[in-house]
Amino acid sequence: MSSYRVALVGATGAVGTEMLRQLHKRGFPASEVVPFASERSAGRPLDGTNGPVRALVPGADISGFDLALFSAGGSRSREWAPRFRDAGAVVVDNSSAWRMDPEVPLVVTEVNPEALDAHRGIVANPNCTTMVCMLPLKALDRAFGLEAIVPTSFQAAGGAGQKGMDELYAQFPALLADREQLVVDGEAARGKVSHAVHEDTLAMNVVPLLGTLNDQGYTDEELKLQNESRKILGLPDLRVSPTCVRVPVMVGHAVEIRAQFRDAVDVASAREVLEGFPGMVLDDLPTPLAYAGRDEVAVGRLRADLADPQALNLFVVGDNLLKGAALNTVQIAEVLHERGLVRAAQPARA
Amino acid sequence: MSSYRVALVGATGAVGTEMLRQLHKRGFPASEVVPFASERSAGRPLDGTNGPVRALVPGADISGFDLALFSAGGSRSREWAPRFRDAGAVVVDNSSAWRMDPEVPLVVTEVNPEALDAHRGIVANPNCTTMVCMLPLKALDRAFGLEAIVPTSFQAAGGAGQKGMDELYAQFPALLADREQLVVDGEAARGKVSHAVHEDTLAMNVVPLLGTLNDQGYTDEELKLQNESRKILGLPDLRVSPTCVRVPVMVGHAVEIRAQFRDAVDVASAREVLEGFPGMVLDDLPTPLAYAGRDEVAVGRLRADLADPQALNLFVVGDNLLKGAALNTVQIAEVLHERGLVRAAQPARA
Repeated sequence: MSSYRVALVGATGAVGTEMLRQLHKRGFPASEVVPFASERSAGRPLDGTNGPVRALVPGADISGFDLALFSAGGSRSREWAPRFRDAGAVVVDNSSAWRMDPEVPLVVTEVNPEALDAHRGIVANPNCTTMVCMLPLKALDRAFGLEAIVPTSFQAAGGAGQKGMDELYAQFPALLADREQLVVDGEAARGKVSHAVHEDTLAMNVVPLLGTLNDQGYTDEELKLQNESRKILGLPDLRVSPTCVRVPVMVGHAVEIRAQFRDAVDVASAREVLEGFPGMVLDDLPTPLAYAGRDEVAVGRLRADLADPQALNLFVVGDNLLKGAALNTVQIAEVLHERGLVRAAQPARA
Repeated sequence: MSSYRVALVGATGAVGTEMLRQLHKRGFPASEVVPFASERSAGRPLDGTNGPVRALVPGADISGFDLALFSAGGSRSREWAPRFRDAGAVVVDNSSAWRMDPEVPLVVTEVNPEALDAHRGIVANPNCTTMVCMLPLKALDRAFGLEAIVPTSFQAAGGAGQKGMDELYAQFPALLADREQLVVDGEAARGKVSHAVHEDTLAMNVVPLLGTLNDQGYTDEELKLQNESRKILGLPDLRVSPTCVRVPVMVGHAVEIRAQFRDAVDVASAREVLEGFPGMVLDDLPTPLAYAGRDEVAVGRLRADLADPQALNLFVVGDNLLKGAALNTVQIAEVLHERGLVRAAQPARA
């Protein structure tokens, strides 16, 4: 039986920590798990790894790995993923660096695992908000032919990692200290706390901007919803009208989706195809808090559109650190293992 | 100069308190403000009124009023608004009781003040979520011809009144006491606090259900967005695909709106018509907390749709207790005064 030497890059972050937990919890056949992180963390022992943490710096020994699971940000992935690949590992990357590269499969394991067969040494894990939408949308696309979506997200602070959660959590005491001010002079309340990760005060608030704006007024986070959805679902012409909003929740992304189809839809048939889809549960009232720490993506508030017989509305919830990130990464590693694709990596063309 | 005897019905609630403040702040020409509330509050003195609070019970003296401003819930409005009207007052009602009655004007003062001319003694104030959407949508309808909207709301606890804010505020200490639990076992965190006003634990969460579900899976709150928007904008065929979600914010509703038009739209022209509209400001990053306690409705994140040249996306924010409720009610009273419509009430047909 196969057993792999696994590099865990970004091992001390929110997603890296969860990846490690998932490798153990799911019994992934790793003979060794070697943690890598920034120089700041180097030398620290890390439970459950063959540590201590190694610094990802020029000259680091990255040889002999079968798999490298990355969650260390886009610029580190751009630099280091090809090095790990060239040294023989298959890289599964959680950043946005490689997702839209036509040679890189972008995979949600329940949705398009077959894309892994053509991997050339790097595989990308989708954006956490896109991820939770893909399961119900794939199920509905198969049944009715998906043509357009209007997704409006309610994204947790944890989508911005540990520092995103730290910032939100730290804001509550000052804001809760003066309840009346929250009602009569919110602007003063808002100014009492600082923000650096999120674009505005997030506690007791909602912030309709995540990431960087382009000239058309869309954020990179919103464009990911369009571009990654098209690639994962294999629907290059899918019309997407995305809005990404941050909400004061620690973990658990939610997305309201209006979906339009080629064929007429009915709720009973839609419910049937959703019920049969793996990794997903139907829940009449899915909330992000209820699914924090759970593997499943939950779908609820399923309604026929009031205005269009070919449209449905649904509310989707999923843990952004689990299915939205670490769980899917480890599930990709599992599929690579099951299909004998770990040691079949093809070096990419120069 | 005119001066009116004003009854304030529901004077001790969140909206009633704010109505009283608005009457004074805006210098409404009231010779007397008489507070009414449930028997529980009767006899209490109330600053700024010709108190004490009177109980709204059979036999209560409701004679001699020129105006009655109601925010006391639907069933009290259904029972008592006609009585005040028959006793000679013009009623401005903040509940949902009369809004869809074809003989009752449903008015946002910047949008359709002319509807007041035909009043027959009862005028309705719109739902707070609908209200904040009406200003930008009216401006855009005039310019481009509005045909369809997909509104997804982020509604504050204060939309459910004082008790809605009390419930949210009370939930924080228990939830914040165990940060790790919010991440690894949200279901346990969720179960630590009780809820009676909102449909689920609201602190550190998002609850995609407000009000009562009908057979088609829509809530009454969502249908208000459809039906009231059509009536206020005078667009009986407007297609509306509504979703109403409660977020852990004390005051300040937000609504993401995808709007489709008859004509092609461009952002520069849209910005121009929005800038010229009264009661509204453009703000690149409008958040509900920043507008808690402010009169203006704010519009931001204005974007051409990625998929449809006849569609725009925008994010709207407004204080649900002010423009969303008390302010608009008092503004209606002001228009009635300015147009000489207070003492021109026609008794409705039996």
